[in-house]
Amino acid sequence: MRSILFHCKEFNANITGLSTRGVEVAPEVLSKDEYKNKNCVVAFITVEMGDEIENISIKMAKEIEKCCIDTQENKIVLAPFAHLSNKLSPFKVGIQFFDLLENILKEKFEVTRVHFGSDKDLMMHLFGHPGNARYREF
Amino acid sequence: MRSILFHCKEFNANITGLSTRGVEVAPEVLSKDEYKNKNCVVAFITVEMGDEIENISIKMAKEIEKCCIDTQENKIVLAPFAHLSNKLSPFKVGIQFFDLLENILKEKFEVTRVHFGSDKDLMMHLFGHPGNARYREF
Repeated sequence: MRSILFHCKEFNANITGLSTRGVEVAPEVLSKDEYKNKNCVVAFITVEMGDEIENISIKMAKEIEKCCIDTQENKIVLAPFAHLSNKLSPFKVGIQFFDLLENILKEKFEVTRVHFGSDKDLMMHLFGHPGNARYREF
Repeated sequence: MRSILFHCKEFNANITGLSTRGVEVAPEVLSKDEYKNKNCVVAFITVEMGDEIENISIKMAKEIEKCCIDTQENKIVLAPFAHLSNKLSPFKVGIQFFDLLENILKEKFEVTRVHFGSDKDLMMHLFGHPGNARYREF
């Protein structure tokens, strides 16, 4: 699993189409096609082939929580992102990872989960402080 | 070297401070603190410890050129980015890599090079088509 955490003033996403590429392509059912968030921690996450998702979701939740504490934010956006690695997991495993991660984080935070398996028009505006972007790999 | 290429409607960066962390910290001299670009290919690049920069800069230039052809853009933004890996090269090597890459690309394209070694307020707006984000690792 590879991830970048961004501390964002603003994060908007509009779904423009469903993915046709990847390992065992199976996008989530689409229930929402527009996302608008302000003052949040956005976690772009690539789940990789062979990841032990139960174990890693706990570690990743801790990193996201730490970032929220450091930035004094209570809103989290979980954004599936296929562009941090060349060894992508099958879609089903990726979606399961986001289920696990969301379940841990929603106990303490307001969590928005972005659709898994689509092309998106993305707009993000990062704060300019040190630590506004953090790379994590497990 | 790890990289993400984004096809952007808009890319703005404002430098907010010089980096104090990393391997042999030595930011570039600051000649410009604000960047504004529209309709461009933005290459976020992390140069890693041990990279053969002469060889890799040629491969990377080809990937960026291909992305420009696919998206019919002639403007490129080269953005140093320390958040795609945990194995960062020393600053000096990273800056040399960007020198090599810029020299190849500026023969055919309008190249903007973003400052190496600073914190930045970043705003990027990606087009929503398939292939708007591409991961490359050499």
